[in-house]
Amino acid sequence: MNKKMNIVIVGLGNIGSYFYNYLRKNRKIIFNKTNTIPNILFVSAKSFNKKRNFSPSKKIWLKNYLSATKIKNVDIIVELIGGSEGPAKKLVFEALRNKKHVITANKALVSKYGDELSKIAEKNKVNFEFEAAVCGGIPVIRSIKEGLIANNINKIYGILNGTSNYILSSMDKEKLEYKDSLSKAQKLGYAESNPDSDVNGEDVAAKLKILTALAFNSFINNKSILVEGIKNIDKIDINNANQLGYKIKLVGIAEYTKNKIIQRVHPALIKEKSYIAKINGVLNAVIIESNPVGKTVLQGEGAGPGPTTSSLISDLCSILRGNVKFPFVLPDKKREMVNFESINNKKFSVYLRIDVEDKHGILSNVTKIMAQNKVSIKRLIQNPTMNKKNASIVIITHEAKNSSFFKVLSILKKKKYVINVPKIIRIEKI
Amino acid sequence: MNKKMNIVIVGLGNIGSYFYNYLRKNRKIIFNKTNTIPNILFVSAKSFNKKRNFSPSKKIWLKNYLSATKIKNVDIIVELIGGSEGPAKKLVFEALRNKKHVITANKALVSKYGDELSKIAEKNKVNFEFEAAVCGGIPVIRSIKEGLIANNINKIYGILNGTSNYILSSMDKEKLEYKDSLSKAQKLGYAESNPDSDVNGEDVAAKLKILTALAFNSFINNKSILVEGIKNIDKIDINNANQLGYKIKLVGIAEYTKNKIIQRVHPALIKEKSYIAKINGVLNAVIIESNPVGKTVLQGEGAGPGPTTSSLISDLCSILRGNVKFPFVLPDKKREMVNFESINNKKFSVYLRIDVEDKHGILSNVTKIMAQNKVSIKRLIQNPTMNKKNASIVIITHEAKNSSFFKVLSILKKKKYVINVPKIIRIEKI
Repeated sequence: MNKKMNIVIVGLGNIGSYFYNYLRKNRKIIFNKTNTIPNILFVSAKSFNKKRNFSPSKKIWLKNYLSATKIKNVDIIVELIGGSEGPAKKLVFEALRNKKHVITANKALVSKYGDELSKIAEKNKVNFEFEAAVCGGIPVIRSIKEGLIANNINKIYGILNGTSNYILSSMDKEKLEYKDSLSKAQKLGYAESNPDSDVNGEDVAAKLKILTALAFNSFINNKSILVEGIKNIDKIDINNANQLGYKIKLVGIAEYTKNKIIQRVHPALIKEKSYIAKINGVLNAVIIESNPVGKTVLQGEGAGPGPTTSSLISDLCSILRGNVKFPFVLPDKKREMVNFESINNKKFSVYLRIDVEDKHGILSNVTKIMAQNKVSIKRLIQNPTMNKKNASIVIITHEAKNSSFFKVLSILKKKKYVINVPKIIRIEKI
Repeated sequence: MNKKMNIVIVGLGNIGSYFYNYLRKNRKIIFNKTNTIPNILFVSAKSFNKKRNFSPSKKIWLKNYLSATKIKNVDIIVELIGGSEGPAKKLVFEALRNKKHVITANKALVSKYGDELSKIAEKNKVNFEFEAAVCGGIPVIRSIKEGLIANNINKIYGILNGTSNYILSSMDKEKLEYKDSLSKAQKLGYAESNPDSDVNGEDVAAKLKILTALAFNSFINNKSILVEGIKNIDKIDINNANQLGYKIKLVGIAEYTKNKIIQRVHPALIKEKSYIAKINGVLNAVIIESNPVGKTVLQGEGAGPGPTTSSLISDLCSILRGNVKFPFVLPDKKREMVNFESINNKKFSVYLRIDVEDKHGILSNVTKIMAQNKVSIKRLIQNPTMNKKNASIVIITHEAKNSSFFKVLSILKKKKYVINVPKIIRIEKI
């Protein structure tokens, strides 16, 4: 008799429905590739009657989603509820405790409770798989855990959020202000009605935390990670960047130097000729710098039911093949207690924009404040703004400590001649 | 007691030595990740006394490399001899027949005998792994077999040879003729003293055959594959391409349409703004178009001891974890007998360069020949060449059958007014 594994899918929204249909249609080929029948035993969601692109049969409907974790012949639970707390959290913890394999696309949950969950999975010798939680269809987790397993990774970074990248790209291409570009993204379905986590950097931060732990054999770090979003980027900043030969991108970066890891998410000016600067629209791209392989680039669709299902099925096949692995590459005891450091002492060049009253002596005062705080100027452009009473000073600095820039900012903010809150965008050589 | 697997490395050239050293240095971390000790039991190569960057101890030297396949406690044989025949072939066949796992970086061998070898491996329930045979350190095989396992792939293509890509890139950037660019590549160690298989497309063809079988669940096809190299590309072609907004790249492409696969390797004009056109130097890039994930791009170092070792270790870890898989994703019986088709009937736009005597009526004769063979002209540029008696006609055609172009070529070749062999380079929209 053929080997069979029983699956329960919990959560039947866009992703869940697509996954359910895809799995049913592709049972045979999945069996051929893994030698194990993927049998959907039950599905469960909040409401049976909700409108979906398929109607689940009553026979396989599980009223109480949590009971999936108790049913003896359930092998695999696929969590597609979402959210770091509530039902998703309950389900995944209970499932692993009851020795069920778990597959999830839930980055909020994994980035928050991944270490605890991984420990339970390891103890109970079941799989805890989350390829779909990071960058949709790009097989980045599998590549770190398997394809690049030999390598010492020293840096992992990229464009990890399609929504914010779409917004920035179309601000640039179509000369839109942030809010107009966001509306457009919402109309096209690229941004949710509440786009907060996509545009404020949280989504990128969750993915980066997971990637960091995988790449550096460390635990997940929720402290000392800098998270800045794109809400404060104006069209004029993008124009200025273009004039200076840069593009503005929201990047997530984790670097390992001198036994310390720095994690950060923020908009950055990136040389327009670089690879990252050319990733436009909803695409995601991850770059891994490691030894001995060098630089590896993975690029693809970062979201949507199709790409997410691609990753979910990949996780499923790994389990069907009977391949139990440590969720974070190494056993819990061997994962490293690495120090995570804030970026205060890290040095950057930055783009600084200060809108000021167009009066005599102001520029000299600004440059004096900078000099006093050890920030020196590489390039300076002063443009009159629309309203001729004001001017916009744009400065590209030499490298200085991150904290120095914030001292400069806090002083400038208090100056009467400064009109808007001055703006700093870091420059990245990636 | 910890689980242990015994390894024999055969072939200790650049790659073999690097791999040996790397594996020794990283034993502990590999054990941590796989829960199995990778124990180098023996090494073997043609000569014990050859100068290497390490001196193998006599204790682990195996005089007769083939005996590795007979020694009972040998679990894994790593073949790094190279070549599709002779010792490498003998070793790999014997090893699999004797139920040893095999890891190889040998694309010539895998592209020629992969199907037979895979069958033996499957029968004997051992692994036959060859990630290092295709695109060095890019985890493309693992991505097709695991990360993208859910997907129906309809096209796989890319820049699969770093040497030829370096030569074309530096012909473009430094305005060199082919032979000067080749010499430079040889000086820098990017091309071998006998660069034939790199520049005539054979190396790309071997990789493409392997990727094709993996991507489309088919067998390896050695017939009806078009293989053209870059030797006939002149500096003037690259200049012309630049003027027209294109770059010239050596591409490998496999497409699945209407139950048929077309495989081809040839130089192509590619829009300068496309991703592929921007891959310069010794890099490799593979693009996979599939459903439901969309387009996935993998880019990285395509050759060299470091990247190759990265892939070898990835294969090794897969075996250490006890993860026996079908070498070509599916069991032999389930692999598909797909038809492979020649490109004769495929339609292309092409770049056509004809150097002619600069006499009255020639252009009209050329265009007449084209019209008679159903090739219509989209753009035409006539340049006088250095020697003012001659002219160079450059034509971008509309789409026409591949065979039509070759009819045009064969007629033109015979014309007295044609000076050099006319040149056709296909235009690809990738």
